[in-house]
Amino acid sequence: MSSTASVDKQASDAQKKSVAKKLAIGGAGLRGQSAGTTSLCTVGVSGTGLTYRGYDITDLANNAQFEEVAHLLLRGHLPNQKELDDYKNLLTGLRGLPEALKEALELIPADAHPMDVMRTGCSVLGNLEQESDFSEQQAATERMLALFPAIICYWYRYSHEGVKIETKDESEDCIGGYFLKMLTGKSPTELHKKVMHCSLILYAEHEFNASTFAGRVCASTLSDIHSCITAAIGTLRGPLHGGANEAAMDMIKDWKSADEAEEKIMQMLGNKDKIMGFGHAVYRESDPRNALIKRWSKELSHAVGDTRLYPVSERVESVMKREKGLFCNADFFHASAYHFMDIPTKLFTPIFVMSRLTGWAAHVYEQRVNNRIIRPSADYDGPEHQEWLPINERN
Amino acid sequence: MSSTASVDKQASDAQKKSVAKKLAIGGAGLRGQSAGTTSLCTVGVSGTGLTYRGYDITDLANNAQFEEVAHLLLRGHLPNQKELDDYKNLLTGLRGLPEALKEALELIPADAHPMDVMRTGCSVLGNLEQESDFSEQQAATERMLALFPAIICYWYRYSHEGVKIETKDESEDCIGGYFLKMLTGKSPTELHKKVMHCSLILYAEHEFNASTFAGRVCASTLSDIHSCITAAIGTLRGPLHGGANEAAMDMIKDWKSADEAEEKIMQMLGNKDKIMGFGHAVYRESDPRNALIKRWSKELSHAVGDTRLYPVSERVESVMKREKGLFCNADFFHASAYHFMDIPTKLFTPIFVMSRLTGWAAHVYEQRVNNRIIRPSADYDGPEHQEWLPINERN
Repeated sequence: MSSTASVDKQASDAQKKSVAKKLAIGGAGLRGQSAGTTSLCTVGVSGTGLTYRGYDITDLANNAQFEEVAHLLLRGHLPNQKELDDYKNLLTGLRGLPEALKEALELIPADAHPMDVMRTGCSVLGNLEQESDFSEQQAATERMLALFPAIICYWYRYSHEGVKIETKDESEDCIGGYFLKMLTGKSPTELHKKVMHCSLILYAEHEFNASTFAGRVCASTLSDIHSCITAAIGTLRGPLHGGANEAAMDMIKDWKSADEAEEKIMQMLGNKDKIMGFGHAVYRESDPRNALIKRWSKELSHAVGDTRLYPVSERVESVMKREKGLFCNADFFHASAYHFMDIPTKLFTPIFVMSRLTGWAAHVYEQRVNNRIIRPSADYDGPEHQEWLPINERN
Repeated sequence: MSSTASVDKQASDAQKKSVAKKLAIGGAGLRGQSAGTTSLCTVGVSGTGLTYRGYDITDLANNAQFEEVAHLLLRGHLPNQKELDDYKNLLTGLRGLPEALKEALELIPADAHPMDVMRTGCSVLGNLEQESDFSEQQAATERMLALFPAIICYWYRYSHEGVKIETKDESEDCIGGYFLKMLTGKSPTELHKKVMHCSLILYAEHEFNASTFAGRVCASTLSDIHSCITAAIGTLRGPLHGGANEAAMDMIKDWKSADEAEEKIMQMLGNKDKIMGFGHAVYRESDPRNALIKRWSKELSHAVGDTRLYPVSERVESVMKREKGLFCNADFFHASAYHFMDIPTKLFTPIFVMSRLTGWAAHVYEQRVNNRIIRPSADYDGPEHQEWLPINERN
């Protein structure tokens, strides 16, 4: 390369100024920048709202089954009774794990991260039942909807209890109930099934959150849907995204009373510790999902005769409001709700996967319809031109 | 929900106008929009250039071993002789596949997509050797650098030939030579090893391309590095990203002469068929990687006594230039070069993975140092507020 150091220097200085300017304007993390168009979801348009295809989350969570919402997101409209029955029949018939997938899950040790298990289960499935054409996207998604509870429960019970469960089980007609049946071996109560419907609906879709966006970036190269969902699962795994309900549970689990909770939270705030389950990147006044799951947490608390965890949770909520003006997001009362149903804390985020799969897949379909590869630019702040040095001349 | 249809209508109309305006300005796919800062790479800054940490790709490809470039990207500087020797020793010592990973690879059928195998191999590895703290990121990357050739070759030879290869093999001290040894069971020639160095260097890094960006989105939730690399592999799998060299090979493989190639290309252009391996989203005048790999393709052609494939490739290049003003990108002469080394076409993109792993991982490190979760916005073009309808009132 010819040496043009002074020209490079000028170019570099100009570039650095441009970088500084862009950073000042744009901010990091693409916050507030549009990365595309969607007809699936609005988040916080009126400051608090969340809608799926125009339906308010409160209407959906209070009235619908999760499978109705899956149908809405994946097939474009709320089903009538026959459509819902057919859809649920279809899904319940798809619960048998391929033998090779069972064997792969048996290879994963008990101390693996459950989200690594979900990511791997999805990836293995893509080898065994490849989506070879986009016309198969609905079928591939339905298979994942049916199998994701089976994948996590098969691994969990094999690795933790040495039991090989039979996942081909049609005794429960809904995904939430089926998950609880696979996890415990027992038929869940009506109350538990209702809570699962609400929970899965609340987590189903949330616009261009990081995991969904990762799935869309993957889809934009016209990759297969298992690659997209695998990418999304791996992205949800991060503690800044999924996992807040697990972290909230870890925080509150040992507090013996509301008063102790208040004392501990005040200490944590004094230490500037991060309190998980509060505030949100998009919502400003409240998270509309909080009241919906909180109601079920309270009802479960009564059902199990709890006099500790729910009062602790309520106190944490009121202290955070009073001290910081912060509101609970969807995750905080999910912690106690799941705990009251005896769900192990490490499986909280995999439940998120079972639900968000619907939103992820709907975004993949949408990206494919009007695709352009997602390939942004970057601001360069590295070294300017470096002359090649043979290895024996290097320090 | 209270009915506020007229207000919603106004809001919706305003929103639609805003959407139309943004689309007109921003364009799709974040093209030309900065999504962050990097010190790793510049692409096309002077119209043709490509640099890694300030070093010109031509200097690197003509003079370096791939392991020197891996060291540059992952450890920040070109190694001196002792550092390079130590680095290569470290990597050659990490080639033993865990038993559980071998067993998982044996479960994947021969007709699986090789990129699904790479994605799954990486994901399984993340279960068995979890990166539990970011201080382990270099070690986790080194293990992947050592194992990725082993993963694809172990699966390929088991599923296609029924052979269980021993991957713990230190007879070749470089990644490219090791790959060829695992693939064929024979020691590669010096020429083949040189070509692999060049090829792996050319594919190592390319700024915010889609797979790297997917990896950074994943990293931005503070997920583990195996999740990030798994996401990147799945994204590279798409035909708009990786796979162009495979597609080029499929196109040229049956053409018997340069004249037939010209005839066929003219027909394809007449039919407006897409010709793979030409043009680029960022480069305007030429792809600096083309001349570098083309030289090796020519030398390999002489070495194997080819009188067909190289002349066919050259003719395609000149016809595309003459008819469309389009230049070969990095992928086009990779097709013939790999073919002359007897590499099966379906393994071309997995080689890309072995190389680009270095760039992906370096971007993950970079994202972690100055992180903000990557969470863009979206323009909503879906239905406005929909009133909830009980299921028995739906059509």
